[in-house]
Amino acid sequence: MGDIRLIEVKEEILSDNIKQAAEVRERLRKTKTLLLNLMSSPGSGKTSLILQTVESLKGAMRIGVIEADIDSTVDAEKVAARGVPALQLRTGGFCHLDATMVTQGVDALAVKELDLVIIENVGNLVCPAEFDTGAHKNVMILSVPEGDDKPLKYPLMFSVCDLLVVNKIDYLSLSDFDMAAFRRRALSLNSRITILEVSCKTGAGIRGWIDWLKSEVAAFKGLE
Amino acid sequence: MGDIRLIEVKEEILSDNIKQAAEVRERLRKTKTLLLNLMSSPGSGKTSLILQTVESLKGAMRIGVIEADIDSTVDAEKVAARGVPALQLRTGGFCHLDATMVTQGVDALAVKELDLVIIENVGNLVCPAEFDTGAHKNVMILSVPEGDDKPLKYPLMFSVCDLLVVNKIDYLSLSDFDMAAFRRRALSLNSRITILEVSCKTGAGIRGWIDWLKSEVAAFKGLE
Repeated sequence: MGDIRLIEVKEEILSDNIKQAAEVRERLRKTKTLLLNLMSSPGSGKTSLILQTVESLKGAMRIGVIEADIDSTVDAEKVAARGVPALQLRTGGFCHLDATMVTQGVDALAVKELDLVIIENVGNLVCPAEFDTGAHKNVMILSVPEGDDKPLKYPLMFSVCDLLVVNKIDYLSLSDFDMAAFRRRALSLNSRITILEVSCKTGAGIRGWIDWLKSEVAAFKGLE
Repeated sequence: MGDIRLIEVKEEILSDNIKQAAEVRERLRKTKTLLLNLMSSPGSGKTSLILQTVESLKGAMRIGVIEADIDSTVDAEKVAARGVPALQLRTGGFCHLDATMVTQGVDALAVKELDLVIIENVGNLVCPAEFDTGAHKNVMILSVPEGDDKPLKYPLMFSVCDLLVVNKIDYLSLSDFDMAAFRRRALSLNSRITILEVSCKTGAGIRGWIDWLKSEVAAFKGLE
């Protein structure tokens, strides 16, 4: 009984979420605001990549950030300190964001004046992959110290993303991370995924990430 | 409606899990088999620590390993290659282990001939902290590249663990990880937690971990 009821409820909630996600996506399509969902394990560099991004695109693009955390507001504070509209969603134990939570974030930001809103999802390589947030693009970070075997272990996350950022390449010298094997594993799960190698610490590869973002925002604004 | 039903079901499942966890714990108390639940983010070094452990304790202690992964059997294969009884639980998308899954693992190992069974939980700093697996001791790993702010963001995990292993201290030279600040943050959440610093790669600090394990197993066997 327990199992059957759980499945019913989960399906009901997931179907609500799919509807809500479609609404968010459509709403931001109208305001020409690209919504980007950034996911990774804890400590892979989501906040660092966002800080690099707002620094690089200051003046060129109007950016807002929705930070999610189970607890604490440290990330939103760091982003806001750069003069970017930032909002902290505290999930209170929830292990992922869903479209309803993102809607609350979007409501609180003046999105129609923004070109790009980046959602920093909860640090978790599992659950966030299961819930459509309403984002137009899904991006994941995998950092070198996490190891090159992660596509084998967390396949769904690699499957749902448009872009895979390999961060902390400055650690490659201390690591046995096999980039060729990692790329093969990721591409075998998702042949259309774009893979970029960066170091948020040294700035290596960040130009490629910024170019990708600019091109995605431009393409999105060109859509009717 | 959806919310209310979800809460009912979750409570029902959690209360079932608490009962099941108590049963596993009692069953292994009778066979004097210490059950240890190892948790961390993806890539923090759970499998590496287990491999170091079976290598160090070979001959001194009879160890079994229950590996959990959403997909793949690579971890169990690595452990089994060292001649240790190992079992892979594939959670099929589930983001954590619960006591029922652990019971299946315990059923499949000849536990009464083992002194120590280590569960490698799903790589996730959120959900596994919420579910009692039936383990007698909970251990978490936090690796240096994940950052010293993680206690602020994932407080529950730090709160439920008896031991915190800080892994990858060989990365400290490349990192701005502040060990003193990290220790303060972890201890403010859980004043009774033991903190050990190790590098599974270089072997630094592993002796302290092995000593802790030996002393816990000895104390457990001495219990009536």
